[in-house]
Amino acid sequence: MGYKMNVSGKNVALELLNKKERINKAYLYNDFSDQNILKELQKQKISIIYKSKDELSRIDKGNHQGIILDIPDFEYTHFEDLINTTNGFIVILDHLEDPHNLGAIIRTCEAANVDGIIIPKDRSVEINSTVMKTSSGALSNMKISMVTNLSNTIKKLQSDGYWIIGTAMETQEDYSSFKYSFPIALVIGNEGNGISRLVKESCDALVNIPMKGKVNSLNASVATGIVVYEIIKNRK
Amino acid sequence: MGYKMNVSGKNVALELLNKKERINKAYLYNDFSDQNILKELQKQKISIIYKSKDELSRIDKGNHQGIILDIPDFEYTHFEDLINTTNGFIVILDHLEDPHNLGAIIRTCEAANVDGIIIPKDRSVEINSTVMKTSSGALSNMKISMVTNLSNTIKKLQSDGYWIIGTAMETQEDYSSFKYSFPIALVIGNEGNGISRLVKESCDALVNIPMKGKVNSLNASVATGIVVYEIIKNRK
Repeated sequence: MGYKMNVSGKNVALELLNKKERINKAYLYNDFSDQNILKELQKQKISIIYKSKDELSRIDKGNHQGIILDIPDFEYTHFEDLINTTNGFIVILDHLEDPHNLGAIIRTCEAANVDGIIIPKDRSVEINSTVMKTSSGALSNMKISMVTNLSNTIKKLQSDGYWIIGTAMETQEDYSSFKYSFPIALVIGNEGNGISRLVKESCDALVNIPMKGKVNSLNASVATGIVVYEIIKNRK
Repeated sequence: MGYKMNVSGKNVALELLNKKERINKAYLYNDFSDQNILKELQKQKISIIYKSKDELSRIDKGNHQGIILDIPDFEYTHFEDLINTTNGFIVILDHLEDPHNLGAIIRTCEAANVDGIIIPKDRSVEINSTVMKTSSGALSNMKISMVTNLSNTIKKLQSDGYWIIGTAMETQEDYSSFKYSFPIALVIGNEGNGISRLVKESCDALVNIPMKGKVNSLNASVATGIVVYEIIKNRK
C-alpha cells in the first residue's frame, strides 16, 4: 500500500478508459496522436499534461508508447471481508517476488473463479503497474488481501474449516490424484525457495507436480495454473 | 539464428560455468568481486574484458549485476532430426511474441518430458538471452526446431501419424475430458490473437480451457502448462 501507481501503454490506457476506471491524470508525449484515446480522455474530462519523450521516460522507463496514466493505488480487500464473501477457494502466495508471476496468477485465478488471493505484507511483490499489465484486466475483478503474518492467517483459515494445501517438491502425493475437499486454501511458494518452513509445517497436505526432466521446478505462475485447474475440476 | 547472444547476471553466469557450457568471453565491471565466478572463469581460461558500468550497460540495458557473457548462438535442431528422435509429444508455438512466455514454456516442456518445440521463423520470438534466463536452465535440454511454414510442418507431422491438437476459445471440447491419443503435436497460439486461421483449420481437434471469470484468456505459458500436464497424464 502506498505504492504510487503509474500505468503506461496504449492497450492498458484504452482498457482503463473503456472500463471507466478512475484516472487522476494522463501524461502524454507532445506528438501523441491516437485519436481513440484522445477522444476518450476528453470525453471523461481527464487532465492531460504534455511532456517531452525524455520527461515521460523519467516517469516510466519501460515501453510507455507516449502515454502514462496516474491512477489511484490498488485497494486491497480486508482479510475478514475476503473470508465473509468466499465460496471456498483461496490462493495464498508465500513471498512471491516477480510481478509478472503475480499478474499471471491473478489472471489465472480470475479465469478459474478463485475467490481471492492472499499475500504477505513484507518481502513480497505488491500490486504495481507491471502486475496490473500482466493481469490483462483481471486485477479489477480479483479480491486481494495483504496480511502481516501468513502463519496466523493460516490458523484463522483452518479454524474456519479450510484445508491448507501446499505445493512442494519433497512429497510423493501427486497433485492430480489427491482428493481435494473444500474449502481450500492453496499455498504457492517463492520462486527460488518454495514455501517457507513454518508455512509448510502448518499445511494440512502437500501435493507435488511430477517433474520428469532435469530441471526440478516450474515457473510459479505455470505451477499455480496446473494445480488451480486440477482443483476446480473437483469443485461444484 | 544470427542472434548474437549476450547473457548477463551472476546466477546465469554461475549456471553456465558449472555446466561447462561454451563461453566466448566475459565482460566484467571494473569492481566485479564475486570470487566464485572469478575463480571459475580463470579455471576455464575464459577471456575477461573489464569495462566501466556505462560500457556494460551499453551492451546490456538490463540488470546485468556487473557480468555479461558472450556465448555462441543457440543451436536449433533440424525438424527431421527432431522427428526422428521423438517419443510422440511435440509442442508447436504459433507465432508467440513474448520471450518470458517462451522461456517458461521451455521450462514446462522440459519438466513434462515433451520431446521438442517447433517455432516459425518469421514473426515469432526467437531464442535470446531473456528466453534463456526465463527457462532456468531448461533450454540446454530441449530440442527446438525453427520452420519456415507451420502449415507444411503440420502436414508432415500428420503424414507421420501425429494428432494435431489446438487450443482455442471457440470449441466446447473441454481439455480435461478430451481423449488424447499419441503421437500428439499440441499447438499454442499467439498471446493476443490465438492460433492463426490456416493453422487452426489444419488441426485434427481443438480443446478449450474453461474460463469462469470475466477475463477470457490465460497467459500463454500458463495455458500451455495446464494442457501439457493434462496430456502427459494420458502418456505411458
